[in-house]
Amino acid sequence: MLVNSVFHRGSALSVSQYNLADINGILARATELESMPVPRRSQLYAKRRVALLFYESSTRTRTSFELAAKSLGADTVLVSALSSSIEKGESLKDTGLTLRALGAECIILRHPNSGAPYLLAQATGLPILNAGDGTHEHPSQALLDLRTILTRLRGTNFAGAKRGKLSGHTVTDTTLRGLTVTIAGDILHSRVARSNALLLPKLGAKVILCGPEALLPAEAAEIGPGVTIERDFERALKHSGAVMMLRIQKERLAGLHLDLEDYVRQYQLNSERLARHASVALIMHPGPMIRGLEITSDVADCARSAVTEQVHHGVAIRMALLARALDSVQSADIFKQKKGRSGKR
Amino acid sequence: MLVNSVFHRGSALSVSQYNLADINGILARATELESMPVPRRSQLYAKRRVALLFYESSTRTRTSFELAAKSLGADTVLVSALSSSIEKGESLKDTGLTLRALGAECIILRHPNSGAPYLLAQATGLPILNAGDGTHEHPSQALLDLRTILTRLRGTNFAGAKRGKLSGHTVTDTTLRGLTVTIAGDILHSRVARSNALLLPKLGAKVILCGPEALLPAEAAEIGPGVTIERDFERALKHSGAVMMLRIQKERLAGLHLDLEDYVRQYQLNSERLARHASVALIMHPGPMIRGLEITSDVADCARSAVTEQVHHGVAIRMALLARALDSVQSADIFKQKKGRSGKR
Amino acid sequence: MLVNSVFHRGSALSVSQYNLADINGILARATELESMPVPRRSQLYAKRRVALLFYESSTRTRTSFELAAKSLGADTVLVSALSSSIEKGESLKDTGLTLRALGAECIILRHPNSGAPYLLAQATGLPILNAGDGTHEHPSQALLDLRTILTRLRGTNFAGAKRGKLSGHTVTDTTLRGLTVTIAGDILHSRVARSNALLLPKLGAKVILCGPEALLPAEAAEIGPGVTIERDFERALKHSGAVMMLRIQKERLAGLHLDLEDYVRQYQLNSERLARHASVALIMHPGPMIRGLEITSDVADCARSAVTEQVHHGVAIRMALLARALDSVQSADIFKQKKGRSGKR
Repeated sequence: MLVNSVFHRGSALSVSQYNLADINGILARATELESMPVPRRSQLYAKRRVALLFYESSTRTRTSFELAAKSLGADTVLVSALSSSIEKGESLKDTGLTLRALGAECIILRHPNSGAPYLLAQATGLPILNAGDGTHEHPSQALLDLRTILTRLRGTNFAGAKRGKLSGHTVTDTTLRGLTVTIAGDILHSRVARSNALLLPKLGAKVILCGPEALLPAEAAEIGPGVTIERDFERALKHSGAVMMLRIQKERLAGLHLDLEDYVRQYQLNSERLARHASVALIMHPGPMIRGLEITSDVADCARSAVTEQVHHGVAIRMALLARALDSVQSADIFKQKKGRSGKR
Repeated sequence: MLVNSVFHRGSALSVSQYNLADINGILARATELESMPVPRRSQLYAKRRVALLFYESSTRTRTSFELAAKSLGADTVLVSALSSSIEKGESLKDTGLTLRALGAECIILRHPNSGAPYLLAQATGLPILNAGDGTHEHPSQALLDLRTILTRLRGTNFAGAKRGKLSGHTVTDTTLRGLTVTIAGDILHSRVARSNALLLPKLGAKVILCGPEALLPAEAAEIGPGVTIERDFERALKHSGAVMMLRIQKERLAGLHLDLEDYVRQYQLNSERLARHASVALIMHPGPMIRGLEITSDVADCARSAVTEQVHHGVAIRMALLARALDSVQSADIFKQKKGRSGKR
Repeated sequence: MLVNSVFHRGSALSVSQYNLADINGILARATELESMPVPRRSQLYAKRRVALLFYESSTRTRTSFELAAKSLGADTVLVSALSSSIEKGESLKDTGLTLRALGAECIILRHPNSGAPYLLAQATGLPILNAGDGTHEHPSQALLDLRTILTRLRGTNFAGAKRGKLSGHTVTDTTLRGLTVTIAGDILHSRVARSNALLLPKLGAKVILCGPEALLPAEAAEIGPGVTIERDFERALKHSGAVMMLRIQKERLAGLHLDLEDYVRQYQLNSERLARHASVALIMHPGPMIRGLEITSDVADCARSAVTEQVHHGVAIRMALLARALDSVQSADIFKQKKGRSGKR
């Protein structure tokens, strides 16, 4: 709410900005755009300008947004830390103003600093799609995870699914009631964990965060309602209808007290553990997976794994977010033109 | 002139190649393309092939050219030093011949060596758009700076503006008469300074180059008519209707005798200095700005700053340069086909 | 043959998968697509999704495939080792599955490991176009080399050409009978050499591999029928209607017993050697050339050099390979839909 009033209403900065109507709007838009004939879809936002500003490397998120934008007919331009003025010390603010002046109508930002998308939104007045900011949020990932859950758990034995409400992806605050989702691993560094922990409880789900203290400080339970901490992975699995495994980000472990072998023994999702403690749970992973570390290969590839489906749903979700962003700019432009006619131009 | 006769007439190698008719042609084309309905514009050069060859990193210039080309409907392909055969020791000539053989009809080149675009133009026979070559020139930047000045100083109190000739951007050799433009900072390494110092006097403007000896050797005054040197920044500001601040390129300062603190004290554009010595001057910067070094944040963002407008005008100017380049190739191709029919093919 | 039955029939993994009908199909398709009016061609595969996955840097191959895909109207997305999850330790398999889930219908892969495209084809079930895998193969390069030879040697004095069969690029197993092609240089590390040595003899050509022992082990003669080894470059040239020079890949020479000066003296293609020993041979090089090392500048630029024509033919060949790949997916999709209607979806 706060977000919507201060920043551009087409932005996707945090999942906390969305109420149920927003979520339903995004899910419905995703389905509409996904099922639209390609030629028609590619005219919807023909030649609109979308900038991708990536201060961290990325395959799936960048590629997903890029293909989503192109599917809508937009022109994209990629600015990455490796080949840009970013190296020359230019501030995020100035890079944003530059992209706006170049005609970008929406900026997709990945940045190592938590909160960077807010700064960019404020500086440019453009709709900003947060593609991951530090350890803060990754809203499009949480939305695609939600779409994956809704699609996969349709007709299963938790309360929300029974209602048959999931087929159209229309959600209420009880849609996921009865579902517990365990998010396990490097919670401390995970914007994916945070966004999911904020989003899923809005639909009635319970979220269990699971990991050793080094990766999951006790304060994480205060992230919001419906979130608890459980250190014992197997106990967490027993209650879970879905389990999200997070990558152990080796590059971020420096200085942490963590024994990798011990971690694998306690927290790796392998087929034995799965069979014994979570025999029907849906298996998710935002990728990239390190097979053999947080997840074994057979589990990653088994029938209950939704890992590639998550990627697939990402394109539809991102088309929806882009459409909302570009729609919001269009109306702003119309306003500007009107002012212009009677005004100085 | 020399340039036009030897190289492809669609090239933009140096502003010294342009006479007033050329400049008016580019300005008129920029305005025409900018105001054209998007669907029509995107058909103008549909699927024409434009290659961007960047041996130095760049955000705004590369992105600006890329979006300009896509706006015209062209297919673009980016070759940058980081991910290409450039590393494998291939010569600029061979890279150019390769791009031509791949079907590129125009190459946009940024290169650390002054004169590289001439070499590429000679080797390929294609129209080359110089996107910055060493410390030599940056013609599209000077043209966009000119368009910024013409747009902003319309109706102000210097001679050219009074005539009301600026609205249509039609220029004569007296259009900017009475206007003095100060270019301040690291002139020694600046292709932007050079291109502006060559271009603006053609329209009657005076150019003051300003900076310490380490960054501005005395010989710089010989760059062309209408150019003088003034070491005292405040004295320069007093006469100026516009001031262009240049980035201090820290990566190029190695070995120079320059004390940064001293530089800031003498040459930084801050609000106090501006209020006292140049209370109405237009403020420009080619970017990327290092706020707090050559320019303070409040000055960069004030109403008289045209920094983001410069970026905006860049897209229109580059569309015009690309259109000229691709037009020139089209006629060349027609000629080739005719020859072909009666010839060996 | 083996390849076709196990992997996707739209793949291009190795030239050994092609029989004469396949080769004629590709050549005919290349000519058809090349001569098609641009607006029509750009609708053929409009908005189809093609991913370029490059674990090694490349200019000509990457750019060639990218422009070919865009010419057909496809949307492209580039994933290169420098800015992707590849760094984060994700496996090739998972990157492939991700690209497929993102909607990629064809993946163009360059990879340092021989055989990587097979792994990717197996993991994804998608048509994979091998853009160079380790020291194994580079099929599109061999096909473009073949097209270059057919175009250039039409009407010359070797047997196949006399039949006048070359004009339409229709080949038989005797089309190149009487033609000897020498491939000289760093055979050991060259996937280009390998693919050509496998492809050209299928049309009746003889292939001589030429180089010092350090770069050309004796076993290379066993690559296939029609291939022999000759250490003496000048003796090889005497029999050759075409000579392909390979780049000395300095980055791969570490540990080899090779004196560069001695190599240049024995194996450099210079005008004197050419005049004396191969006065009519066609000169080819896959690029990037190191002028002054394996080839002199005057030879690279002489009338008999087909170096830039090779690049030109590459775009047409790659359009044909992409068209075959995307055609094969289309039919697969139709099949899937049919199954889907009566099945679970």
